[in-house]
Amino acid sequence: MQNISLAPDGTKYPLPTDAEAIEERKILKSITEEQRKKGRKIVAVQGLGFVGCVMATVVADAVDEKGEPIYYVHGHQRPSPRSFWKIPVINNGIPPVSSSDEEVPEIFHRCVVEKQNFRATWEDYVYELVDVVVVDIQLDATKPAFGEAEKGFCDLYAFRGGIRTLGQHIKPDCLILVETTVPPGTCEKVVKPIIEEEFTKRGIDITKTPPLIAHSYERVMPGAKYVASIRDFWRVFSGVNQKSRDLCREFLSNVLNVKKYPLTELDHTNASELSKVMENSYRATNIALTLEWARFAEQIGVDLYKVREAIRKREGTHDNLLRPSLGVGGYCLTKDPVLANWAMNALFGLEGTLDMAIRSVNINDTMPLHTIEIIKQVIENLKETQVTVLGVSYLENLGDTRHSPSKTLVEFLRKEFALVKVHDPYVEVWPEIDETVVLHDLGESLSGAQVVVFAVGHDEYRKLKPEDVVAMTGGKPLIVDCSNFLSDSIIAQYRKLGCEVRGVGKGHIK
Amino acid sequence: MQNISLAPDGTKYPLPTDAEAIEERKILKSITEEQRKKGRKIVAVQGLGFVGCVMATVVADAVDEKGEPIYYVHGHQRPSPRSFWKIPVINNGIPPVSSSDEEVPEIFHRCVVEKQNFRATWEDYVYELVDVVVVDIQLDATKPAFGEAEKGFCDLYAFRGGIRTLGQHIKPDCLILVETTVPPGTCEKVVKPIIEEEFTKRGIDITKTPPLIAHSYERVMPGAKYVASIRDFWRVFSGVNQKSRDLCREFLSNVLNVKKYPLTELDHTNASELSKVMENSYRATNIALTLEWARFAEQIGVDLYKVREAIRKREGTHDNLLRPSLGVGGYCLTKDPVLANWAMNALFGLEGTLDMAIRSVNINDTMPLHTIEIIKQVIENLKETQVTVLGVSYLENLGDTRHSPSKTLVEFLRKEFALVKVHDPYVEVWPEIDETVVLHDLGESLSGAQVVVFAVGHDEYRKLKPEDVVAMTGGKPLIVDCSNFLSDSIIAQYRKLGCEVRGVGKGHIK
Repeated sequence: MQNISLAPDGTKYPLPTDAEAIEERKILKSITEEQRKKGRKIVAVQGLGFVGCVMATVVADAVDEKGEPIYYVHGHQRPSPRSFWKIPVINNGIPPVSSSDEEVPEIFHRCVVEKQNFRATWEDYVYELVDVVVVDIQLDATKPAFGEAEKGFCDLYAFRGGIRTLGQHIKPDCLILVETTVPPGTCEKVVKPIIEEEFTKRGIDITKTPPLIAHSYERVMPGAKYVASIRDFWRVFSGVNQKSRDLCREFLSNVLNVKKYPLTELDHTNASELSKVMENSYRATNIALTLEWARFAEQIGVDLYKVREAIRKREGTHDNLLRPSLGVGGYCLTKDPVLANWAMNALFGLEGTLDMAIRSVNINDTMPLHTIEIIKQVIENLKETQVTVLGVSYLENLGDTRHSPSKTLVEFLRKEFALVKVHDPYVEVWPEIDETVVLHDLGESLSGAQVVVFAVGHDEYRKLKPEDVVAMTGGKPLIVDCSNFLSDSIIAQYRKLGCEVRGVGKGHIK
Repeated sequence: MQNISLAPDGTKYPLPTDAEAIEERKILKSITEEQRKKGRKIVAVQGLGFVGCVMATVVADAVDEKGEPIYYVHGHQRPSPRSFWKIPVINNGIPPVSSSDEEVPEIFHRCVVEKQNFRATWEDYVYELVDVVVVDIQLDATKPAFGEAEKGFCDLYAFRGGIRTLGQHIKPDCLILVETTVPPGTCEKVVKPIIEEEFTKRGIDITKTPPLIAHSYERVMPGAKYVASIRDFWRVFSGVNQKSRDLCREFLSNVLNVKKYPLTELDHTNASELSKVMENSYRATNIALTLEWARFAEQIGVDLYKVREAIRKREGTHDNLLRPSLGVGGYCLTKDPVLANWAMNALFGLEGTLDMAIRSVNINDTMPLHTIEIIKQVIENLKETQVTVLGVSYLENLGDTRHSPSKTLVEFLRKEFALVKVHDPYVEVWPEIDETVVLHDLGESLSGAQVVVFAVGHDEYRKLKPEDVVAMTGGKPLIVDCSNFLSDSIIAQYRKLGCEVRGVGKGHIK
C-alpha cells in the first residue's frame, strides 16, 4: 500500500500515522470546545471533492446579523493516497481545485486563514463533535457497455461505508444533510436503515430519537461563478421527517442567499432526490433531441444554430432548447438518468424503465460518432489520416475532462487507424484515456493535420485566424466545427483558403 | 352535391351560382381599382380558417404613419358546403370563429364595417388583382395507425391545388407568403415548381421573373390573446430568393408589431419551415418525457407537479419543463413532428427518421391509456362501470376538440365496456367522435358515476366543491385528476368523503 499522497503540484504528503491520529483527535476536540464557547455550531462536510470543498467554505463563510461566523466547519476527507493531499493544502488556505472563479481562492483564504473557522481533517472522530454533517461523498453511475445506459447501475459501496461511519459516530440529534446526487429513494432506503442499525447497536432508542436525515441537492456550475452557484442559487430540500426538514431549512437559510433565492421545500426526500435527477434528465433529453435535427439540417442546407436562435426567442416556453455538439460530458447529464432508472428497480422494486431518459443518455454518449460520420463524408478512409482535436475538456474554458465526449471521439478515430493529436490549453493530464499526450503548442498540434476538429469552444480556438491554422497544418485540412464555434465569415475564409468546412448541424446552401 | 352551406348558428346559405360569380368578379375589380386609387396595396388571404381569418383582419388593420390603412384585404374561401357560410358571415362583420378574446369581434367589425378594407370572396379571379397572397390553407398529417406516427404522412393534394390556382392567376411580381405550417422543403420543392409550371404555361419567363415565394409561420395561440398572438409576437421568415425575402420583410414589418418583436430572418425557406416543426417537436418531446416520470412519481409517493415547480425555478434553462396530463391535443404538437419526418424522406429523399420526435408523438398519442391504467389500479374490471369525463376539449377554457386526448380516453374506456358520459361547458358538438352527446348539465353528467375523471382544467371544474360532486354522483366515486387540477386540500376533502383519489403524476405518501 502506497503511503504517500501526491498533490497535483508534485508535492508528496506522507499518509498520517496512528500517532498523528491520536494527536489529531486532541486537536479536533480542543478546537471544537473552543468554538462552542464562541456560540458557534459545529458542522462537518464529508468528502472534499468538487462540491464538498467549496460547500465547506460557504458554510464557514456564513455570518449572523453581527457579522460573526455562525458555524465552525470541519472538512473531512479519507486519508487515501489519491486524496489525502487535499487536507494539508486546504489547511494552508489553498483551494484543492483549480477554477476560473476568483472567489474560490478568496473564500478559502478568508475562512481558513482569516476567520480560522474551516479546517480539514481525516479523522472519523470528528463526527462525534458536530451538529450537522453535510454529505458530499462522490457517487457515480457505472455504464458497463458503450451506448447501453439501460445496463447502468450505481455502486453504493463507498457511499454506504461513509454513511455507516456517520452512524457509528454522530450524536443522535445530529442532522445528516445529504447533498450528493443520489438515486431516488437513497435517504429513505439506504441512509436511514444504516443509521438506524448503527444507532441501535450503540443503544440509541430510534423510536425516541429517530435519525435526522435531509436531502438538498447542489446545482453547482463549474466556471466563473463556481462559489455563487452554490451560495446564490435556487435550492430544493426535504427530509425524512418533520424535524429533519425544519433543521435543514434552518441550516440552509443560515448558509445560502435565501433572500434572493427562496428555498423550495418538498414533501419527502424521495421528491427532492427525484427532482435533481429529473432536471438533469430533462437537460439530457433536450440535447439528445438536437442530434436528429442536426443531421436533417446538415442534409437540407440549414444552419440549425440559426433555427435554434429563432425558436429561443420564445422566452419561458422555448428558450431552454439546447444546441447540437460533439456530445455531452461532465458529471451530471451522463449519469443522473442512469441513477434514476436503476433506483426504480433496485431501490423500489418497480418494473419499467425511464425509456426516454435512458435513450437520451445513449444518444448523447454515442453523439461523437456523428462527428466521425461528418469527417468520413469527405475522407472515406481514415487510416493514417492525421486528425487534430482541439479541446478535450467537456466545457468551454475549463480543464475538466470528466466524461468528456472528446474521449469517445479520439477512441473511435483510433479504431479506424486515424493518427490523432489532441490539444487543450486547460488540460495538463487526461486521466480518462490511455497513452494520450495533451499538447499545449498549437503549431505542434496542427502540423500535418488533414482534419482539424473544433471540439470545444475555448476562447483561444474561437480567436484563431484561418490563415494561421492553415499555415500551421501545412496543407488544406478539412475543418470540422462541432458546435457553431466558427462564424459564417470565418467559414468563408477557410473556404477561400481551399479548405472544406463541415459542421454538426451546419448545413450550407451550395 | 349539396348546394347549401350550413353555418354553426343554423343559418343556411345557398352556394353561389355562375351568374353570381360573374357579378362577384365585377365587384372585385371595381373595389380593387377604387382601393388602388387610395394608394393601398392589395392582399389576398387564401383560406379563412383558424389562422387565415384573423390574419386577414390583422393585415387590414395595419396603418401607416398617418393612420391610413396600408392594405385592402380580400379573404378567399372556397365555396364548399362546409365553409362557404364564412363568407357572408364575415361580410356582415362577424368573426367565423368563436373566441374568448374580445379583440376578435372588435377587429372584424373595425375592418369590415368601419374601415371597409376587408371583404371575403370565393372567386379565384381575386388572385389576379393582388400584390401579396398570404397562404393559410389548412394542412394536416395523416396518422393511419394509433401510436404509430412513423407511418404518418402529409396529403398535399388540396394544398397543391390551392397553389396551382395561384400560379394560374397571380401577377408575376405577386408575393406568395406561405403561412401554413408545411413539411420542410415545401416552398422550394412543392410551391416553386408548381408556380414555375403555371407561369411558363402562361408565357411568363421565369428566368426573368422568378416566382416570389416566402415563408413565415404563425405562432397563433387560441384563447384570450388570439389576435395578439398573431400580431404582437415573434416571427420568423425567409424566402426562396432575395427579392422574396425583401418583400416579405417589408410586408410583415407593415403588419406586425415588429418594434417590440423584431423579425428573425433565416437564410432559406427550408430553415423557416424547419424552425416551426422543430419548435413543436421540442414541445412534444418535452411533454412525452413527463409520462415516465409521472409513472415513477406515482409509485414512490411523489407529487411530480411540485417537483416540476422546484425545477422550473431555474429560469432560462429549466422553465420550459411541461407537465404530465391526460395527453396532448390540438393541431400542432400532434402533427408537426410527422410533417418533418415525412418530408425528410418524401421531399428530400433522405434516409433515417426523426426518432425522438416521432417516438414522442406516439407516447403523447397513447398517453390517455395511462389514465385508464390508473383507474384500473382501483377498479380492475371496467365493464359496466360508469365513468364521467369532465372536459373533452384539448385546452382549458376553450371549446376546441381537435385531436383532443379525451377522445382516446373515451374510446378506450368503451373498448373495455365502461359506460361513459362526457361533459364540457364549451363544446356544443364533438365532431371527431361518433355517437357521443356532450352534456352541459353537471348533475346529469355525474349522476351514477363510479369514476369521475378531471380530464381538462376548465375553471368550472376547478371550482367544484367535493361535497357537491359526491352528492351528484350519489355514491363514493373514484376521483381521477389528470393534471394537477385538484389542490391537496380538495383531495383531502374527497378522501374525507370516502372517495379514493388518484392522479397522473400524483403520488401521495401514505
